Amino acid sequence: MRFIELVKKRCSVRKYLSRAVSMEVINKCLEAARFAPSACNSQPWTFIVIDDEKTRNKLAERAFSGIYSLSSFAKTAPVYIVVVTQQSSYAARLGGYFKGVQYSLIDIGIACEHFILQATEEGLGTCWLGWFNEKKVKEILGISGGKKVDVIITMGYADTSCLPGKKRKSIKEISRFY
Amino acid sequence: MRFIELVKKRCSVRKYLSRAVSMEVINKCLEAARFAPSACNSQPWTFIVIDDEKTRNKLAERAFSGIYSLSSFAKTAPVYIVVVTQQSSYAARLGGYFKGVQYSLIDIGIACEHFILQATEEGLGTCWLGWFNEKKVKEILGISGGKKVDVIITMGYADTSCLPGKKRKSIKEISRFY
Repeated sequence: MRFIELVKKRCSVRKYLSRAVSMEVINKCLEAARFAPSACNSQPWTFIVIDDEKTRNKLAERAFSGIYSLSSFAKTAPVYIVVVTQQSSYAARLGGYFKGVQYSLIDIGIACEHFILQATEEGLGTCWLGWFNEKKVKEILGISGGKKVDVIITMGYADTSCLPGKKRKSIKEISRFY
Repeated sequence: MRFIELVKKRCSVRKYLSRAVSMEVINKCLEAARFAPSACNSQPWTFIVIDDEKTRNKLAERAFSGIYSLSSFAKTAPVYIVVVTQQSSYAARLGGYFKGVQYSLIDIGIACEHFILQATEEGLGTCWLGWFNEKKVKEILGISGGKKVDVIITMGYADTSCLPGKKRKSIKEISRFY
């Protein structure tokens, strides 16, 4: 598949089949994420893979409810990837301080998209999730207070089709030329 | 090419041939970037494409010198992509405020990596650049004070080979399973 086809094939899947995802496929996605570039090669990420039903149910009940129930669709996903944003290396943090930018967030974007595009190639559906009760997620998974969970990826075989036509700005609207 | 091969093929190219890059290829990269997902579909990016020699020289002289001379390799690149981080939509900003995360940076990571992986497929070399004199970049390109330029991508045909073997943590080091 050409890269542009893969990019266009990816979509936000919000309804999943109960069919399990093999560890082999999950490892392929982690392999693609692992090779992502990052500021000063900091690799500021940890991927917590959850396919255990009990833990998934706990997360679904406590982290995707109340004001976070917009994300309750995640309950149907057989796999969650909870992504911990680690600190960048000292050099990257110092550079980021001077430039006024948290490079580790850019790095998380790159690595998670690698994961997601690999999953897409494997025929899986995924969804980026940014709206969840982070405190509860950290409590359930024993993640220490100082760490950040900025992204969860839901993953599984889709029980729905992608909506046709992604709504995106045109090239003209997002670019300038010199 | 399988996605994992594309990921492994990409590397940071810091020496370029003077050979020009066609607008057709640049547009393919913009097309891949354009289809990136983003928080609440905000698409918080503008790509300023610079292949004009005069503007490139100005940037090289003023933005990649002094304490930023670590990035002076960029002088050899025939194309710069100056990426302006735009504000996310109101909903994404509100969510980001509650969660303590600037989603637009994650989005920039995704879209720029789409651009770069498309360029890799086209046989081009690229490099992520985060260390440059942002104030000078904005002055030269007439970008208003309130806007942020967090990333520049250098692009061109490589005058160097990728170093063999990317240094990355193992899957075991970057993951946990439930």
